[in-house]
Amino acid sequence: MYAHETTLRVRYGETDAMGYVYHGNYAEWLEVARVELLREIGMPYTSFEKLDIIMPVREMSIRYLKPAHYDELITIRTFLDQLPAFRVQLRYELYNEEKELISTAQVLLVPYDRSRKRPCLPPEHFLRLLNPYFGEPVSGRLLECL
Amino acid sequence: MYAHETTLRVRYGETDAMGYVYHGNYAEWLEVARVELLREIGMPYTSFEKLDIIMPVREMSIRYLKPAHYDELITIRTFLDQLPAFRVQLRYELYNEEKELISTAQVLLVPYDRSRKRPCLPPEHFLRLLNPYFGEPVSGRLLECL
Amino acid sequence: MYAHETTLRVRYGETDAMGYVYHGNYAEWLEVARVELLREIGMPYTSFEKLDIIMPVREMSIRYLKPAHYDELITIRTFLDQLPAFRVQLRYELYNEEKELISTAQVLLVPYDRSRKRPCLPPEHFLRLLNPYFGEPVSGRLLECL
Amino acid sequence: MYAHETTLRVRYGETDAMGYVYHGNYAEWLEVARVELLREIGMPYTSFEKLDIIMPVREMSIRYLKPAHYDELITIRTFLDQLPAFRVQLRYELYNEEKELISTAQVLLVPYDRSRKRPCLPPEHFLRLLNPYFGEPVSGRLLECL
Repeated sequence: MYAHETTLRVRYGETDAMGYVYHGNYAEWLEVARVELLREIGMPYTSFEKLDIIMPVREMSIRYLKPAHYDELITIRTFLDQLPAFRVQLRYELYNEEKELISTAQVLLVPYDRSRKRPCLPPEHFLRLLNPYFGEPVSGRLLECL
Repeated sequence: MYAHETTLRVRYGETDAMGYVYHGNYAEWLEVARVELLREIGMPYTSFEKLDIIMPVREMSIRYLKPAHYDELITIRTFLDQLPAFRVQLRYELYNEEKELISTAQVLLVPYDRSRKRPCLPPEHFLRLLNPYFGEPVSGRLLECL
Repeated sequence: MYAHETTLRVRYGETDAMGYVYHGNYAEWLEVARVELLREIGMPYTSFEKLDIIMPVREMSIRYLKPAHYDELITIRTFLDQLPAFRVQLRYELYNEEKELISTAQVLLVPYDRSRKRPCLPPEHFLRLLNPYFGEPVSGRLLECL
Repeated sequence: MYAHETTLRVRYGETDAMGYVYHGNYAEWLEVARVELLREIGMPYTSFEKLDIIMPVREMSIRYLKPAHYDELITIRTFLDQLPAFRVQLRYELYNEEKELISTAQVLLVPYDRSRKRPCLPPEHFLRLLNPYFGEPVSGRLLECL
């Protein structure tokens, strides 16, 4: 498993007339969290795009347990429970300043090779960086697909 | 079942650098669709808030099957498969101009009484308006809770 | 002068915790209004991009006179006071349902040729479509630049 | 004069199909910058709202000199050139990582007392905190209005 933690502060523009954060704005927070996870691993998302690999979101699901408020510092924990392959599954936990769990989420990314116009595995370099965090190493068979 | 259809046009500001609509912006589209559904039923969302009832989103899940592009006219079909009670479950299908299914989604709203500070049933008037579309009528027991 | 009018309905996600529309969200409304103006003229923005011409915003200024609220139907009047050339200057007036002027704005677009990588005039076809609305015809000198 | 500097990283959701940051999203950045300025002065915006004072934006104007790109670290310098009174005028300069000036902006806030329902001066405490940074002290006459 690879786990990562980041914090961000709620912007006024992210709230709505209920006085809480608009539910739709969590998607951008989840994006920020996984982008920082990729940076920490050592392969920022920009380096995926330089290889002509994009990682569009295929599925997203969010549970809103407690509201988030303006100016709160939100902590986002992001988990890669499995070594990514053709599917990159991310799991999230969001906490407020009182360390209360306010939201959980899951996002599925699907790496896509823009030059070959087809789904692809994440770059080999990325898999090698992640390998030590997972019990089972990247199999020769997986790398053959690259 | 109650079914509703609305269309909206993709804004430039809703796209991202991949050239498609940013996945996070679908949440606002789903909001527009259910707001128009409520208006069509005869009880716009503003009239819920006048009764001090808000309907925050408790769960949202979206599948992105095909990308949506700038300036496309998106058709959103919204379904209430069951008569709403303490939970208002909405199901969505999104289509592009070629009538291709580009996305499916589910949103769970939880009506909340702001003056009593607790979850509540939707207003009785709303349930009566919806009643004809569902086989089973609003039971006396459900109305007792109001 | 060319004048155009469009309406749009305020989305919940566009409001903020003050209970009004977040000021930053007007920019997208102005975009919607000028996109509809271009469509009405007969040359939608997508047809500019097909010619590899983009029209980024160079300057934007907005005055907020009265707040806009959730679910209001906002009327946006867009004015081209002068025939566009290397600069496309738009002027806006926003009205609420009580026909009160709630906002005024100005946006300056600068057409840019992506293939030649330099600022450019709007496409000749676009200028010819607009010509009848302006006293002074497109001069030969202007068309020479194209 | 009071000057403040903050940085933020461009989110993917803030870009648009041109490949740059959507011009409308700068408004939220300017908000983040002035919120951090207020926090640094010692009176965060939340403490204004606790006094029932909101500070809606009355005017905003932005010049876009160079595009901002995904994942760039943007530096925002915010200037209070004059001691705020019934009008709080902010001036901004935005820089990219190459220290190029990419944008300038001005935002006018108008403090408003929600309980008395009228425009007001900023809280006295706020003016006293700012006083040392401006040649001319808060005049007795200004404080009388409070």
